[in-house]
Amino acid sequence: MSKIRLFVNCDLPGSGTIVLNKEQSHYLVSVMRVKVGEPVTVFNGRGGEWQANVNDAQKKAVRLTLESQSRLQDKEPDLWLAFAPIKKGRLDFMVEKATEMGASQLIPMMTQYTNVDRMKEERLRANVLEAAEQCDRLHVPLVADMIKLEDMMKDWPDDRMIMFCDEDMSGRSALEALSTADDKANPKPWGILIGPEGGFSPSEREMIKAHKNCIIVSLGPRILRADTAAIAAMSLWQTALGDW
Amino acid sequence: MSKIRLFVNCDLPGSGTIVLNKEQSHYLVSVMRVKVGEPVTVFNGRGGEWQANVNDAQKKAVRLTLESQSRLQDKEPDLWLAFAPIKKGRLDFMVEKATEMGASQLIPMMTQYTNVDRMKEERLRANVLEAAEQCDRLHVPLVADMIKLEDMMKDWPDDRMIMFCDEDMSGRSALEALSTADDKANPKPWGILIGPEGGFSPSEREMIKAHKNCIIVSLGPRILRADTAAIAAMSLWQTALGDW
Repeated sequence: MSKIRLFVNCDLPGSGTIVLNKEQSHYLVSVMRVKVGEPVTVFNGRGGEWQANVNDAQKKAVRLTLESQSRLQDKEPDLWLAFAPIKKGRLDFMVEKATEMGASQLIPMMTQYTNVDRMKEERLRANVLEAAEQCDRLHVPLVADMIKLEDMMKDWPDDRMIMFCDEDMSGRSALEALSTADDKANPKPWGILIGPEGGFSPSEREMIKAHKNCIIVSLGPRILRADTAAIAAMSLWQTALGDW
Repeated sequence: MSKIRLFVNCDLPGSGTIVLNKEQSHYLVSVMRVKVGEPVTVFNGRGGEWQANVNDAQKKAVRLTLESQSRLQDKEPDLWLAFAPIKKGRLDFMVEKATEMGASQLIPMMTQYTNVDRMKEERLRANVLEAAEQCDRLHVPLVADMIKLEDMMKDWPDDRMIMFCDEDMSGRSALEALSTADDKANPKPWGILIGPEGGFSPSEREMIKAHKNCIIVSLGPRILRADTAAIAAMSLWQTALGDW
């Protein structure tokens, strides 16, 4: 199997030939120095994973020939991560980690204590793709456009549970709370809510806690940064209700 | 209470007066623009947390007067994190997160697939201090000097358990394995072992797994980077056996 793994934006197997875009072609030919005949692994987020060979190593348009399917598309837990934007380096990191931890959708949200008013969603999407390539996932998490917390809560799907990591330590142990609220054998869809570095405002916390699907959990006695809290919450969710 | 929280390298309460070092004085006066009479929170990793006031705002040697103790020193879980060095940005991040997650000692270790042969332990110690200041911890994790994995295993304390996150998915669910191996009401000391990005070598894995205190756990079906695995493992440990 190839060590190079690429997301491709086309049907698989499709015609059996894939023409890579300019960036991917540059990466293969100029960075990885791949030659004709060498193997490359590809996936598209819906059609499983395929082994391919380079059949034309043009710098701007590498062509691959599909050989065989190496993995069938799997089913993954349905877990959203909604988060307020944080500083750029930490945001990149959080998005990469959320992909590794198996989030199905990332939702940047604007809150009262959020002081950026726009989001480079395209940058997040690029990070998500790269992380999915690296961590051997077959799915690529969706990245939603930034939305106001209030609007997100108003349109929150009726059947989707909310894991709210409140900072005031009023929540129960996360595992106990999650296991009581749902069944690992047949879990509901869920969403984890992570606030900005300054936390949610008191009125925002009340709004979230008042939602009928909200389960309040605690992440221990130390103050966690938003990015740490996101990873910790996802690992507990995956253990209690997901595929760990 | 002050929003500025500093680690001080002196006894508390000691004489009741603290002279800050050059870096901390610069930070307070030139960055935070603190004036005489303003509050600062201090801790030393063993004497709880204290409220103090600035009584002399000299740029190179700020003096604080202690007012009162705001928190008693608490007892924290005894959890080591042993890890192979990874790229600088990710290493800084892992050390910060390990501090937030409550590690008591960080041990950089050299493995067969580790390609750095020295470590800037002082840089890690500075990161650990900063993270402890930020996350409201009263303890500051120790940072050991880099050691060979083999030597670490040879001298591993007889009573300290090992949580080994093996990549081959042979391990049991982490929570089940941890809860079976120990008792949250009175937990043993533990250490988590995280390999380098390329993983441990086959012979290293055999050596670790053969240790009588080793508990093998799985962190799910996706490939996690070393820094992600460290945070995830610590959150599961804190939930199963620690103070979450």
